[in-house]
Amino acid sequence: MNVEIMTIGDELLIGQVVDTNSAWMGAMLTKEGFHIQGITSIGDEAIVIKETLARLMAKSNIVLITGGLGPTNDDITLKTLAEFFNTSLVFDASVYADIERFFEGRKDMMNTLNRDQALVPADATVIHNKVGTAPITWFEKEGKVVVSMPGVPVEMKQVMSDEILPRLKQRFNVPSIQHRHILVHGIGESSLAIQLEEWESALPSFVKLAYLPQVGLVRLRLTASLPDEALLTRTLDEAVEKVVPLLGNTLLALEDTTPAEVIDRLLKQKKISLSVAESCTGGNIAHLITSQPGCSEYFKGGVVAYDNDVKCKVLNVSSKDINEYGAVSRQVVERMASGVRQLLQTDVAVATSGIAGPTGGTPEKLVGTVWIAVATANQVMSRVFQFGNIRDRNITRASIEALAMVKEMVEQ
Amino acid sequence: MNVEIMTIGDELLIGQVVDTNSAWMGAMLTKEGFHIQGITSIGDEAIVIKETLARLMAKSNIVLITGGLGPTNDDITLKTLAEFFNTSLVFDASVYADIERFFEGRKDMMNTLNRDQALVPADATVIHNKVGTAPITWFEKEGKVVVSMPGVPVEMKQVMSDEILPRLKQRFNVPSIQHRHILVHGIGESSLAIQLEEWESALPSFVKLAYLPQVGLVRLRLTASLPDEALLTRTLDEAVEKVVPLLGNTLLALEDTTPAEVIDRLLKQKKISLSVAESCTGGNIAHLITSQPGCSEYFKGGVVAYDNDVKCKVLNVSSKDINEYGAVSRQVVERMASGVRQLLQTDVAVATSGIAGPTGGTPEKLVGTVWIAVATANQVMSRVFQFGNIRDRNITRASIEALAMVKEMVEQ
Repeated sequence: MNVEIMTIGDELLIGQVVDTNSAWMGAMLTKEGFHIQGITSIGDEAIVIKETLARLMAKSNIVLITGGLGPTNDDITLKTLAEFFNTSLVFDASVYADIERFFEGRKDMMNTLNRDQALVPADATVIHNKVGTAPITWFEKEGKVVVSMPGVPVEMKQVMSDEILPRLKQRFNVPSIQHRHILVHGIGESSLAIQLEEWESALPSFVKLAYLPQVGLVRLRLTASLPDEALLTRTLDEAVEKVVPLLGNTLLALEDTTPAEVIDRLLKQKKISLSVAESCTGGNIAHLITSQPGCSEYFKGGVVAYDNDVKCKVLNVSSKDINEYGAVSRQVVERMASGVRQLLQTDVAVATSGIAGPTGGTPEKLVGTVWIAVATANQVMSRVFQFGNIRDRNITRASIEALAMVKEMVEQ
Repeated sequence: MNVEIMTIGDELLIGQVVDTNSAWMGAMLTKEGFHIQGITSIGDEAIVIKETLARLMAKSNIVLITGGLGPTNDDITLKTLAEFFNTSLVFDASVYADIERFFEGRKDMMNTLNRDQALVPADATVIHNKVGTAPITWFEKEGKVVVSMPGVPVEMKQVMSDEILPRLKQRFNVPSIQHRHILVHGIGESSLAIQLEEWESALPSFVKLAYLPQVGLVRLRLTASLPDEALLTRTLDEAVEKVVPLLGNTLLALEDTTPAEVIDRLLKQKKISLSVAESCTGGNIAHLITSQPGCSEYFKGGVVAYDNDVKCKVLNVSSKDINEYGAVSRQVVERMASGVRQLLQTDVAVATSGIAGPTGGTPEKLVGTVWIAVATANQVMSRVFQFGNIRDRNITRASIEALAMVKEMVEQ
């Protein structure tokens, strides 16, 4: 099943916004066995939209469109689609009700522009937008499906996951496909590939392996399709079973998840409470944890001890240690972890202290040097890492390694 | 001057890599007065590359290609371009010397695959790659320019800035173009559009206005091109001048920036120190601030007071207030702000307490209710917000409003 993705918006062309929607849709659809042929970004211009859509429909089964559905005058996608499909815009009471519901209890008032968002092409199937005001529309013509979705990522993702993908799978006959995910941290893609060379070459030819690297993480994805579902399941399970001992400590999870989600599930299940003391990660670990709904079950809070005074005053780090060993040292980071654990009275605490960069390094302690410690009532574990020169990558990598060390400690 | 961007690579289609190159090139070229017509991403397939290039050349003056230049067999861009332009691949000694230089002193060894990267189309002008091994090639045909660049962002950026853009400006006569950016918070795109309706309709017809919404923010962008540069500058400056009073408190900045950057510059300039006490935002405000290099000039740290015990014990909130008014209340959030300010001894402190969701709401306090307070030595300002139901959006919006309140307080 061939898919073309078409993203609409002048902001994409002038580089104001990076098109992250296409990659997200591409990953999701590929996983389900669809084939993405191309991605085309164009401006908010009726004649270009029509010409592009005609061309993409001619060479694919499915065209997925995002963008151009806002309430303002520069957003012309629906009006243009109505013209393209030779139909008219009509008022849709259920979309109007959605929009009204969206504005309930908000301080923004619904206005005439929002009201006009209830005008949808007469021939389209309307799918409800649960998180915004722009309607989603599904067109069918000569066996081809064209779907128009909002360009706001959170709205597109919700409707793709909950509505469009299930409908596309039902509408087209995609072959059954299975995946296994393995989340690995603290090792680069090429080192990992060398480590897994033998295992990889022993995989059956119908099993495809992909390395999906991110900052601080590599996701391994095994994909296969077979008529014999039981054999498919067994083959993939065996492949995973064999790779686990090769990964050792770098293994974070045997699923497509995030480090914060791994910790969330683990601490909820074990009923272990957590606090954090962050210097170089500056609140990012707390932010990753508190992005998980229901984290208050185990997360008590933390201290962002950016300034050395805060480390001493709030976390009970001795200024003598800071003077003697520096703020980025085993001594200080261990004290930070123990200090926040005692202050917030949690079972486990994790602390970071490092040089995020781009400046602040010395010949002895380069930019990217990060100490991390995890403390419990009767143990402190600490480790030093040498990351690179880029601030946001260092913050991300330190946060991931801190969460991985919490996992290691809790699972001991 | 019309430009088409063409990015090549299967990894873009299956969503393994987000195409950030196109937005970067789009922003850079737009600023210089080039017009980006479209962005097309396709796979590593010769027939598709040729068909797409022919189509894009027919409707533009310039086609910029990235990707498919790696040393492995799946990278076929140069070979395909040679076929397309009816020429052959020839060995280029200067490219070979570049590649040799690149491998000098590296632990990776140069191999036969790298050696083959010195084969370039005979009719192309070769531009040297200073940071990688893939050659950059410039083709001219019937007045059209086609440039092939590496897909690795750091390599593409270097050659675009230093080589391609200067050559394009020289080769084509681009009109001068100007932009103005206005960053607005705390108001929806459509309410803002209504508020600015009169102003917008009074803009000269050659000035284009775009609304670029993000969670919690709207970016307004004015764009215009005129032969008379002085008139152009005056017209855009006047338009901005007129919109400022209409925006009032919702104005964050008259440039293309972020709330954290606004605060960063403001507090550095005024030499005002800051601390944070975060409940519902869970460390995100601290994270946004500490993502700014050099923030230690003004940011001392903060307390993530997720649990009520932490609010009482560390921030000196009275448990009586929590029992009487609830943790999400004016009383508690004001105490949190004052408490962290005193604890970390800063000039200003900001605190948040709210219900991020998806659960935890009550009929009196719905999910999305957030109290924010800003405290100085002699003043506390607090405000309640009613956001929506989506956890990460609520966290983002609360963080933006907290930063905006810091700005308001500091600029009083």
